[in-house]
Amino acid sequence: MKYFITGGAGFIGSNLVKMLLEKEENTVVVYDNFSTGRSEFLYPIELSEKGSRLDIYNSRIEDTHTLADCMEGSDFVFHLAANADVRHGFKDPSKDVKQNILNTFNVLEAMRKVGVTRIAFSSSGAVYGEPSIYPTPESAPFPIQTSMYGASKLAGEAMLQAYFEGYGIIPYIFRFVSVLGKNYSHGHVYDFVKSLQNDPRKLKVLGDGSQTKSYMHVSDCIMGMLTGIFYDWYSSKVNIYNLGTDETCTVKDSIKWITEYMKVNPKIVYGSEKKGWKGDSPLISLNCKKIREAGWKPLLSIKEGVIDTVEYLLENLWLLEDK
Amino acid sequence: MKYFITGGAGFIGSNLVKMLLEKEENTVVVYDNFSTGRSEFLYPIELSEKGSRLDIYNSRIEDTHTLADCMEGSDFVFHLAANADVRHGFKDPSKDVKQNILNTFNVLEAMRKVGVTRIAFSSSGAVYGEPSIYPTPESAPFPIQTSMYGASKLAGEAMLQAYFEGYGIIPYIFRFVSVLGKNYSHGHVYDFVKSLQNDPRKLKVLGDGSQTKSYMHVSDCIMGMLTGIFYDWYSSKVNIYNLGTDETCTVKDSIKWITEYMKVNPKIVYGSEKKGWKGDSPLISLNCKKIREAGWKPLLSIKEGVIDTVEYLLENLWLLEDK
Repeated sequence: MKYFITGGAGFIGSNLVKMLLEKEENTVVVYDNFSTGRSEFLYPIELSEKGSRLDIYNSRIEDTHTLADCMEGSDFVFHLAANADVRHGFKDPSKDVKQNILNTFNVLEAMRKVGVTRIAFSSSGAVYGEPSIYPTPESAPFPIQTSMYGASKLAGEAMLQAYFEGYGIIPYIFRFVSVLGKNYSHGHVYDFVKSLQNDPRKLKVLGDGSQTKSYMHVSDCIMGMLTGIFYDWYSSKVNIYNLGTDETCTVKDSIKWITEYMKVNPKIVYGSEKKGWKGDSPLISLNCKKIREAGWKPLLSIKEGVIDTVEYLLENLWLLEDK
Repeated sequence: MKYFITGGAGFIGSNLVKMLLEKEENTVVVYDNFSTGRSEFLYPIELSEKGSRLDIYNSRIEDTHTLADCMEGSDFVFHLAANADVRHGFKDPSKDVKQNILNTFNVLEAMRKVGVTRIAFSSSGAVYGEPSIYPTPESAPFPIQTSMYGASKLAGEAMLQAYFEGYGIIPYIFRFVSVLGKNYSHGHVYDFVKSLQNDPRKLKVLGDGSQTKSYMHVSDCIMGMLTGIFYDWYSSKVNIYNLGTDETCTVKDSIKWITEYMKVNPKIVYGSEKKGWKGDSPLISLNCKKIREAGWKPLLSIKEGVIDTVEYLLENLWLLEDK
């Protein structure tokens, strides 16, 4: 199988590349503009014997001709490239519109042009907004969006679904909780470790620390996607899976694990708001029964995921520097 | 109140302009590129004493500076401009992306720029795809899209909701059934009347005629929007209403009413499919309890709406000619 991965040099993408190339029959094309992707994440793979089965294109999804040319001959698309900066979505909403909505459309059009018929899409639990049901199942009541990120991912999902109806392109839509682990380079663990590296005496927290979230390790995330895809390989339909651990933790839990691991004892300054920022979900908890029934379960707990990530960041301090 | 209406020269828009100008304290700005809008719909209003309270701009929503300049000073936006050609959405999916998704974003950005804080949006029952519940309530299970039109309207809704969270812009989202009546210039009644005017001996029907739909007269549609808006005027939240009659009819019913009114007896050639086209909803029936509770009810039955439309078209044969 030849896999085409947008955002293949990014956090989840680069881990996926590595995992896919474990199988000798697989080849991978990475398509990334390296705006947040890191060539460092792919170097070790390129230098290994697997490197001969990896092609990397440094190019933009907006360059639709190049996109289609590079995609030609692929069997499967993972569309992971996105503006993943949930927090700053309201600073410049055009980023989510261009990078998430329009680029998903561009990827779908390229697939239609060159005849690729399957796509996996990294959606998000953010599409549930502030749901009325916890843990939230895939069939939750019609949600109301609370962030540009969620809105743009929902728009992406909607187009994928229409492309199935119109052109028979089979979508595998995964609604993730937050992901962390190796090659993680943004998010709350990143922010906390960076801040504590700079000044271990204090830590400023967005929101009152009671926000309840769910996290998943990137290795579990990738196994979850592959499980969903191959479970539904022979069914021609729209496939949607929540993907996350059944656990939740609070921001306070996470801070405890991080500070204990780093052996620091900062003065912690909390905000007064329930939410960390406008559009932040004060509670994320997904019902993952469906992907569990397909045979997947996460191997790492949230705590193990957080600690693995802290360990990784402390071993890769270069990542904490501004790009 | 000064109302700004995108698509104000279109079918629903032109009826709305007329209705709003009935109140002497209202002024209206129409913003339309006249691609499907018709200056003929606005002439009678312009020529009446109400004309002094009506400004018309022939301009594109893509011209974002002009859009913002023309919107400045308005109190309320009706965003009705859209690609409403549901049937041909898969011929060129970029139309729905540009005209429905991107232009809704452009309108929201203009509002943010010039400080307008309320918007009514013409969404559609198409956002429910092929729902699992009939009649379908606003809180139906998270839908799967089956048309580019539905997907693009859902994306529009999602952005409006995010703009409420991020910028406090209050949205009034209306999910319409199909609308017909005065100034109606596309849709199945239009197609049938046009075909029967050309050749009253035969009528070709897309699909097997069993598709069950709901229709609403444009005068009821407008009263429904105004009811929802003023019912929720003092509540700062995302407002979503289904808008339609409680009745349904089949395509066969509709053909019977039309041919009886036109006194023709064509040979009717049905298709073999349940759906009229890819993405067609074989059954549309919305639960309109919420807007009913706000005090609205439709005054015309589906049959009355269809017959009023046929009557209007036969009195305005120029509309049946290609633009």
